[in-house]
Amino acid sequence: MADPWQQCMDYAVTLARKAGEVVREALKEEISIMVKSSPADLVTVTDQKVEKMIISSIKEKYPSHSFIGEESVAAGEGSILTDNATWIIDPIDGTTNFVHRFPFVAVSIGFVVNKKIEFGVVYSCVEDKMYTGRKGKGAFCNGQKLQVSGQEDITKSLLVTEMGSNREPETLKIVLSNMERLLSIPVHGIRAVGTAAVNMCLVATGGADAYYEMGIHCWDMAGAGIIITEAGGVLLDVSGGPFDLMSRRIIAASSRAIGERIAKELQIIPLQRDDTTN
Amino acid sequence: MADPWQQCMDYAVTLARKAGEVVREALKEEISIMVKSSPADLVTVTDQKVEKMIISSIKEKYPSHSFIGEESVAAGEGSILTDNATWIIDPIDGTTNFVHRFPFVAVSIGFVVNKKIEFGVVYSCVEDKMYTGRKGKGAFCNGQKLQVSGQEDITKSLLVTEMGSNREPETLKIVLSNMERLLSIPVHGIRAVGTAAVNMCLVATGGADAYYEMGIHCWDMAGAGIIITEAGGVLLDVSGGPFDLMSRRIIAASSRAIGERIAKELQIIPLQRDDTTN
Repeated sequence: MADPWQQCMDYAVTLARKAGEVVREALKEEISIMVKSSPADLVTVTDQKVEKMIISSIKEKYPSHSFIGEESVAAGEGSILTDNATWIIDPIDGTTNFVHRFPFVAVSIGFVVNKKIEFGVVYSCVEDKMYTGRKGKGAFCNGQKLQVSGQEDITKSLLVTEMGSNREPETLKIVLSNMERLLSIPVHGIRAVGTAAVNMCLVATGGADAYYEMGIHCWDMAGAGIIITEAGGVLLDVSGGPFDLMSRRIIAASSRAIGERIAKELQIIPLQRDDTTN
Repeated sequence: MADPWQQCMDYAVTLARKAGEVVREALKEEISIMVKSSPADLVTVTDQKVEKMIISSIKEKYPSHSFIGEESVAAGEGSILTDNATWIIDPIDGTTNFVHRFPFVAVSIGFVVNKKIEFGVVYSCVEDKMYTGRKGKGAFCNGQKLQVSGQEDITKSLLVTEMGSNREPETLKIVLSNMERLLSIPVHGIRAVGTAAVNMCLVATGGADAYYEMGIHCWDMAGAGIIITEAGGVLLDVSGGPFDLMSRRIIAASSRAIGERIAKELQIIPLQRDDTTN
């Protein structure tokens, strides 16, 4: 039987590349910044422009599909995940990097049907790296098959995470004490390149052994999530339980052993889910 | 008058590129790891092989010059900086990255005469980016002139630093509380790619606004230090006073204002200098 979603995936790759070109062009111009939830939560006209471009292109081709996009949600649209075919879009993952021209900026597109991720596309556009993952068919970067490290020993692991954009003292304390506990196990180190999607893709390549974060959104995880699992990795909740795309929490690891070991150290940050209506 | 050190600099670029090829080849093979000062302070045969290659090549051409190399010092050689022309070498800056194939690994060569850095070469070999800086003649990456951001407002800045390889609880607490204080100013964010030299080069490109760290060594700073200043940045001690190459402490900033603001937040970690004999 033909893959029912292959055409959608090919289209996602085309759109991500086109969006990446817009982002690269924008990096040459002056960038004006607006602030969202905190002085460290930034957005630019390019985020909004790229998201509109992606969503309007898909809507034209697949009018019955649903959408959850970072900037559409910021503008007041809902983010309830139904069983309908749903495109989950982050036009610029790593907006702070974009603003500073720190060279890790990704366009992320995840495609979810019956609440399961079918494929994901992450285009790290300054590096020109196109990461893709299709359920049951593996993960690739620029055509090269990806495989996680498979590392099971936490004391030999390299982790990736972020300090995030939340500057509330209580949250920051938990973020940093989680890092302190993990470093003390000890692990080899912790890295942070400034985008969840690229961090996760680095786990998929085997370059890092696990990524964890709390406070990110479904659009930060949907594209790269399937890239991780198709590269042989696992997704867990930060409690060690099953991963939930709308929970704003993730551990993406090269092995269940490492993922569960990280979960044991993490103090949980209270968060409102992506699918809460208010 | 001809530049007396231009020939040395050209040779450094040639050697860094050759060393980078060796590192890239080694990334394709299995990597066996040895531990140095802590479970997170690693070294491989490639570090040692590359340093030997670089130093023996230079010694042949410039027999009167002096050397300070990371692995030579680890093997018991001194690291006293004299007024003699001195090559300061880190064969692999980012050894933990190298071990994990996390894609930021640099060969760093600094050249110091009368205790002043004359030129620096940092070759980020997975990215194939050759950064150079020559006193009075500017800084470049793959031939393109570099310029720091010039940002003076700390609340609009993106910082780079590392959590380091020291796992003593007291040190780790200071490292993380320094990050907490800076994040709370607030700054836009903190990134960590896992090599001091590449972090500093990212400041030179304008992609980040400042880098700071305590506990690194002269071979981590000598190459990139002059790249920062030639790109218009400043080097300071973490106290805010004058930079000292042998102090194991640095703030490398896009402006004096940002550098001094960071210094105000930093709690100092007690460290033995690179040039202490014991």
